[in-house]
Amino acid sequence: MTDETRERRAAGATPALVHRRDGERAAFEKDALVVEEPLEIRLREGSEPPARFVVTMRTPGDDEDLAVGLLFGEGVILSADEVVSIEGPDDPRISEELARNVVVVTLAPRAEGEREAPRRATVMGSACGVCGRTSIEDVLRVARGARVPASGTGARVTASILTSLPAKLRSEQAVFASTGGIHAAGLFAAGGTPVLVREDVGRHNATDKAIGALLRSRRAAPEILLVSGRLAFEIVQKAVLASIPVVAAVSAPTSLAVELAEEAGVTLVGVGFLRGERFNVYTHPERIAADES
Amino acid sequence: MTDETRERRAAGATPALVHRRDGERAAFEKDALVVEEPLEIRLREGSEPPARFVVTMRTPGDDEDLAVGLLFGEGVILSADEVVSIEGPDDPRISEELARNVVVVTLAPRAEGEREAPRRATVMGSACGVCGRTSIEDVLRVARGARVPASGTGARVTASILTSLPAKLRSEQAVFASTGGIHAAGLFAAGGTPVLVREDVGRHNATDKAIGALLRSRRAAPEILLVSGRLAFEIVQKAVLASIPVVAAVSAPTSLAVELAEEAGVTLVGVGFLRGERFNVYTHPERIAADES
Repeated sequence: MTDETRERRAAGATPALVHRRDGERAAFEKDALVVEEPLEIRLREGSEPPARFVVTMRTPGDDEDLAVGLLFGEGVILSADEVVSIEGPDDPRISEELARNVVVVTLAPRAEGEREAPRRATVMGSACGVCGRTSIEDVLRVARGARVPASGTGARVTASILTSLPAKLRSEQAVFASTGGIHAAGLFAAGGTPVLVREDVGRHNATDKAIGALLRSRRAAPEILLVSGRLAFEIVQKAVLASIPVVAAVSAPTSLAVELAEEAGVTLVGVGFLRGERFNVYTHPERIAADES
Repeated sequence: MTDETRERRAAGATPALVHRRDGERAAFEKDALVVEEPLEIRLREGSEPPARFVVTMRTPGDDEDLAVGLLFGEGVILSADEVVSIEGPDDPRISEELARNVVVVTLAPRAEGEREAPRRATVMGSACGVCGRTSIEDVLRVARGARVPASGTGARVTASILTSLPAKLRSEQAVFASTGGIHAAGLFAAGGTPVLVREDVGRHNATDKAIGALLRSRRAAPEILLVSGRLAFEIVQKAVLASIPVVAAVSAPTSLAVELAEEAGVTLVGVGFLRGERFNVYTHPERIAADES
């Protein structure tokens, strides 16, 4: 285990005593719970004091990545270059305990002053990806019209690489091993090499953390995003905005996820942990190559 | 299959062609996807025109239950008696397709005018339960201080009834059978009888639908809420507000779910589909009775 892994696990899991029953037998046993705590993101722009932007229920750890990924997914920032700093709050009225759950993001002013006033002052559940917009048109607008690079321009992904990804994702999860119940999002190169893996109690947060870490690293978007759990509209939306052309999940996609993927040119794949060579392609199968034999 | 079940399944699933791969073999096959669409809830109070309150990504069906459960969970209404009507929009600018995804809830005026101005104008993901509040204090406030009835006052639940619930929930799911991937929330009496089961792509929506249906039926709260998927803070919060003393899930709870359950007097249980007689009690085990032998 690396130091980084150990640190992540410490933040993401907490010990608990659980009353285990098996028929008439009962015993208190040690267990580990996934940590869930609210994170409040405040935005500072120009000389104004920081304004509350959103609260999301998340697993502590990689909070800076989460903040950047969330702001990018919301269209508040177009790249990590617009983030001047990410710090704890310097408001002396905030207790030390609360301060762990507040980040203040200072945004660079835009030359043209063209940034939409960040108008979310909302709270999101741990799996919320489209919180904070005010109408159906707003929800569907963010990713509509955007498209990932056409399939001819990127590397194709082979079937055997796709089916190898769930096990790779699991082996990169620091918190999963101890709690057995935390989501993950992983970015992988077309050849199957893991680029970044992030964990969270919510799969939307895990995705925001992975994309936020990618943006902060200034690397180009890799070919594949794999998320644990089911694949709803918002995950595809995040992938489209980040120019990731292949989105895979270990559970089935929803109707709206498939619609958006079709429209935006995303290859949507369902792969499982125990399904061997089997997988489902829901949209744009042209990016999946046959294995060389 | 009852007519009601058939109708639910029609609304909750949609046919799709999927490209199934198994090693080098590939074929297009028929599949069914869980339907995900945005629902916009508008509120009308007094003579004002309806105002947008929230958009949630949901599986169509039981939209009235969802609206009532969500408004109750948010503290906007204290009972179904405060709802005068739930209708489609009568705005002629709204297309027929969009109108299916908009409900207008007319609220009864309160004598004292004491209802907080409904201040959410936000969008929630399909698994978002605390969207729309503006600070950490707000998030944690809603259920803090509330308590479910003490354990001495209600029926106790036996171990064998608890472990029988996941299979009962599954057998009541109309959409699950066709898509294999939709969440459910079920309300059960202490004796194990299903009272209400609702399905949705998000487990928070499924919970809101079940609690909303309960409120609209004017029945007293039953003893048990069982949800598929993991058990985060917001689910416990909804149960506390609805006075449901036992909350069970087929996956592990988070740290904050356990904290709130402990504080609010809720018995929190983890049960599985394939775990036989085994289950975990995280808080208030005093409500679980030994089986009579």
